[in-house]
Amino acid sequence: METFADFREQSLPLIEKEMESFINDHTTNNQLKEAMLYSIHAGGKRFRPLLVLATIRSFNKEAQTCDYQVAAALEMIHTYSLIHDDLPAMDDDDLRRGKPTNHKVFGEAHAILAGDGLLTAAFQLIAISQIEMHQKILLIQLLSKASGIQGMVAGQAGDLQGEARALSLTELADVHEKKTGALIEFALLAGGILADQPAEVVDLLGMFAQHLGLAFQIKDDLLDATSSEAELGKKVGRDEALNKSTYPGLLGLEGAKAALNEQLTLGFQTLETLKQTSSEFHLELLQDFLKQLQL
Amino acid sequence: METFADFREQSLPLIEKEMESFINDHTTNNQLKEAMLYSIHAGGKRFRPLLVLATIRSFNKEAQTCDYQVAAALEMIHTYSLIHDDLPAMDDDDLRRGKPTNHKVFGEAHAILAGDGLLTAAFQLIAISQIEMHQKILLIQLLSKASGIQGMVAGQAGDLQGEARALSLTELADVHEKKTGALIEFALLAGGILADQPAEVVDLLGMFAQHLGLAFQIKDDLLDATSSEAELGKKVGRDEALNKSTYPGLLGLEGAKAALNEQLTLGFQTLETLKQTSSEFHLELLQDFLKQLQL
Repeated sequence: METFADFREQSLPLIEKEMESFINDHTTNNQLKEAMLYSIHAGGKRFRPLLVLATIRSFNKEAQTCDYQVAAALEMIHTYSLIHDDLPAMDDDDLRRGKPTNHKVFGEAHAILAGDGLLTAAFQLIAISQIEMHQKILLIQLLSKASGIQGMVAGQAGDLQGEARALSLTELADVHEKKTGALIEFALLAGGILADQPAEVVDLLGMFAQHLGLAFQIKDDLLDATSSEAELGKKVGRDEALNKSTYPGLLGLEGAKAALNEQLTLGFQTLETLKQTSSEFHLELLQDFLKQLQL
Repeated sequence: METFADFREQSLPLIEKEMESFINDHTTNNQLKEAMLYSIHAGGKRFRPLLVLATIRSFNKEAQTCDYQVAAALEMIHTYSLIHDDLPAMDDDDLRRGKPTNHKVFGEAHAILAGDGLLTAAFQLIAISQIEMHQKILLIQLLSKASGIQGMVAGQAGDLQGEARALSLTELADVHEKKTGALIEFALLAGGILADQPAEVVDLLGMFAQHLGLAFQIKDDLLDATSSEAELGKKVGRDEALNKSTYPGLLGLEGAKAALNEQLTLGFQTLETLKQTSSEFHLELLQDFLKQLQL
């Protein structure tokens, strides 16, 4: 099987085309369209939609148009959350991926609307896709749960409240599980569902996603604590400046590195279990992805 | 058949219970929950969800739990739009229905998240409801279209842009059709779909909704131009102060009143056509609703 880097290079243009054409074909206000496309084109690792597609590929299936649509919908949800998170009332960020944030270019009002538009469009895109009916409903149930008041939006609220006081390790894990973990879990679950996998396999994919999500967050905290602004393309050291609870803050740098390694080890083990559970499953692609999070 | 006022009194507690219990049962962050419930409890005419239920009732059917869920989802979309519209970066309103706006009580960040949460929860509520599968997908398609980048969000962007320059009558009608008309149309279409009506009847309900929506908007503009703050429970004369294009502004007070009457007449006529098309249809309830918009 190809490396994750190869897979990424081959999949990225198709994910981006799907987002772009949906927005172009459906937005009836030009300035709104421009604001949405600006953030869609701002790049980023696209690792949530890539995980949907990599999961499907891991079961030796070729992704179809409707799979790219689900991947695109997920990235639109992620993009909306970044636009709203960057607003002056939230994290007040001027830069994102090395470019001015949405509200810096289009003003706060249009940035709020661009976020609202992308959020709504994500559900519209799945709803009008050619996915089999019961899978479509299941995906909308899972995506609204992952991105909403039991998931990402709740996590973001918890994160804001965490700026005002110190969180315990359990509270911090809960905030992250909701804020970033839930969408990552959706990516793996959606991949398994779209690849027509049985519940026990989808459950194991969800378990893998939890280790992956936690590893991702610890790595993110470590990067914020140790990188330069030029390396990251966004402000660094903000967590500390905001008195935000982080893994390095709670566990120390070495403790956070150990916690990252633990999650990665558990992730690799879950991939082995998946391979033993499903003869169709090839672990290489997701394993390769997980390796990128190693220090 | 009962009057609209009786129907309203009987239906309101059930709509509110549905919204409240969904939010209470699903929100995992207390401050987010409190902020959402604050705006849900802030009252309002609830005329969108009432139109869903009144339409079902007009076909002589008793509304079921799933009908109340669709009505509640629609009101949650409307409520999120009010929270975001009131933000300082948007309309910058301190009062809504005589009470402090969401961001005045919970701060801007939580108001943004409360809006995002209600928007996402609306789709979740429909997705997990007991509605028959193909109707559920159709409703999610229609609601995402009506509330998103082809509908309300696009209309709100057009409305913002209208503050910067004078709109023509056609442009103004387009902004309103998207900003308020689309959700009103959804209410009627959803009622017809949930009452298992054939496409020709659902189409007529959509046509009725367009006259109703336009009448509603002209009435709203007239109230803003002629009422006192105490009467409306919100600031008045804002349209003029903001140099916003309005029907009274473009047509004069008398011209706007004539335009309102024209839409009401067309609305009454469409109800008659509906009665001739479907033997199940009783026009009294929607007729009574339309009468409330008369001057």
